[in-house]
Formats: sequence, structure tokens, C-alpha cells
Amino acid sequence: MADTRIITISREYGSGGREIGEMVAKRLGVPFYDKVLIDMIAQESGMAAGYVEEASEKMTTAQAFNISTLGYYSVSPIIENVQVIGEDVFIAQSRIIKELAEKESCVIVGRCADYILRERDDVLNVFVHADYESRKKRAIEEYGIEEKKVANVIKRSDKARAKHYSFYCERKWGNVDNYHLMVDSGKLGVDKCVDLIIDATK
Amino acid sequence: MADTRIITISREYGSGGREIGEMVAKRLGVPFYDKVLIDMIAQESGMAAGYVEEASEKMTTAQAFNISTLGYYSVSPIIENVQVIGEDVFIAQSRIIKELAEKESCVIVGRCADYILRERDDVLNVFVHADYESRKKRAIEEYGIEEKKVANVIKRSDKARAKHYSFYCERKWGNVDNYHLMVDSGKLGVDKCVDLIIDATK
Repeated sequence: MADTRIITISREYGSGGREIGEMVAKRLGVPFYDKVLIDMIAQESGMAAGYVEEASEKMTTAQAFNISTLGYYSVSPIIENVQVIGEDVFIAQSRIIKELAEKESCVIVGRCADYILRERDDVLNVFVHADYESRKKRAIEEYGIEEKKVANVIKRSDKARAKHYSFYCERKWGNVDNYHLMVDSGKLGVDKCVDLIIDATK
Repeated sequence: MADTRIITISREYGSGGREIGEMVAKRLGVPFYDKVLIDMIAQESGMAAGYVEEASEKMTTAQAFNISTLGYYSVSPIIENVQVIGEDVFIAQSRIIKELAEKESCVIVGRCADYILRERDDVLNVFVHADYESRKKRAIEEYGIEEKKVANVIKRSDKARAKHYSFYCERKWGNVDNYHLMVDSGKLGVDKCVDLIIDATK
């Protein structure tokens, strides 16, 4: 079996998966791809100028909800929404992810990277999840979500991720068969999850 | 959060989960419960004498298949079979598992221990799985299953475990929400899985 060069991280909303991914990348001294990746996709595919604009025009209720509830507007939520990102964006995204994996060791959060890189044997696919109370706490305290809105935010965010994944990857998000390591950050804590992921790559 | 005292291991057939559990217990210097536990249940509940006999009488096609295919007859397969183990056995089993957890640190493989101990906060629930080819290889090379029978053995064994679990625990076997750590022994290897489980308890 080839040594692990690439780590993909999929995560439930509020599980701290993004933070864990950043910490893993920092500890390993490799690049971390998330929104940066999206920018690269936009540039690569020549959609940089029209991307956000076009997405805004096609905005769905779910997306408007994200923006109003999460209180910010970034490129990131767009990529989660299957109604908004078209196949051309997914193809461009896939191409970039494949090129990155070929070129360098890195950590990639979300973006169906586990599926896109499924034919490589130097990839460790990680799923970060947590119990509902831990996710709720993190969403309120760290993401600044209002308490009265948090249940809905968690539900809709997970649903959007699962929908996007099943649409493009034709398999089930969060299913054990798709991942090599699944960690409960609520039980184990963020630092322990980072340790375990790094240990699993060695 | 309380320190981990108990480790429960659920596993796909052929994933090496039982072997991993034994190695974890040995490294931690704590007891390992599997068939031994079944014997204890049988003794505790006064069913020792009639247990196997009664089970044999009620034997289903699935169980006859296990015996003829796996080539051995032990008490263990009986406990996997929802048609055979009655609620009284499950209740006795639950009581023993709860008593063990109260009394001492240990590793428990199978037996719905994750569910039975769900109200404790000193339990780490682990699920061991692997890709189909790795499981097939282990079943043939280590468990001595004939190649022409192995696909059927894997399928039926997983199905029996899932059925038993869903019947008694009313939740889905292998679902991410039930476990704190899920490891792919095909990708990571048995030794690495042992390391990760032990590290997760610290």
C-alpha cells in the first residue's frame, strides 16, 4: 500500500472538521485547501468574474437561508448547493483536485475529494462527526449562530452536504464504506482527532 | 468527560475486529470478553445445561449454514442469530455486560455492548470494517473458508449481525452515530488499528 500523501476530510456541520483539517495540515506542514480551492477553481475555469454573480441569480431558498442565518456570504456555501453548482463547476473542481493530489501532499476539506480521488491509493479519507449537543455548542459559541436558529442550521447544512455528495458521487455521505477513519470529535476532542488522523497517515 | 475504561468493538465479518480487540486488551492489560462472556451468561442465567440443546432444536437455515460452512460449532454463532437468542438471553447478557463494565476495565467484542452500555460515559465504541477484498482474503487465509463459499459467508454474517443489532438495539449497525472511532483495517492494517484505538482511550 502506498504511503498517505493526501488527506480528505468530510465533516458534519458543527463537528469542527474544518478546524481539525487545518490543524492536521499545519502539523504536517502541507497546504490546506478549502475556500482557497474554490478560488482556484473559479480562476482555472474562467468563471472568476461571473461565478458569484451567476450563483446569486440562481440562488435558492436554501441558499438565501444560509446567508441570512449564517450571517455571512462567501463562495463556500455555494459549492454546497446542488441546485447552484452546475456540472461544469464540478468538473473543473474535480480537475483541480486531481492536479493538486498529483502535485503535492495536502489536506482537502469537503468538495467530494474522497470520491474524486477514489482511484488513488495514497489518500486517507476521514469523516469527522459529533453528537448533536457538541455540534450545537460549537455552532453557537464558535460560529456565532443564534440559539433559536441552530437546530435548523445543523439540519439544513447536513442535508445540503448529503444531497450534494449523493448527487455527484452516487454514494451515501457518511457511509462507513467511503472512509478509512471516522472520528467523533464530541467524544474524543479536537486535539485527539488531530493526533489520530496524523497517526493514521504514518 | 470521564476517562475511557471500557472499549466495545463491533466489526464486519473478516475485518479482523476480534483479533484487534484481543490485541488492544493485551496491550492495555485488561480482560477481553467474547465467547468467555457467553459462557458466563449461560452460567449466570442457569441456562448452561439446556442452552446449546435448546438452540439446536430451534436452529434455522441460517444457523445450519453457519455450522456447515464455517466448519465448526460453538456457542458463539448462536448469539448472533436473532431467531435463536430469546429476550431472556439478551437480558441476561445485558446484565452481565453492565456488571463487567461496573467492575473492571475491559474490551468487549460484539454482543451489542455499545448499545447496552450507552448510558455510561467511560466507554469508547469502536467499529472495525474493511474493503471486500481484504475481508475475503482474511476469511480464506485466516479463517479457512473455502473460496467458493466466502462471498456467501461474508454476506450472511454481516446480515445476521445487522439484523441482531437492529432487533435488539433499535438502531442501525455500522451507522456512524453509534461509534466514536471507526477504522478501516484493510487500509490501515491491524497493528495501526490497535495503535489508534489505544491512543483514542488516552
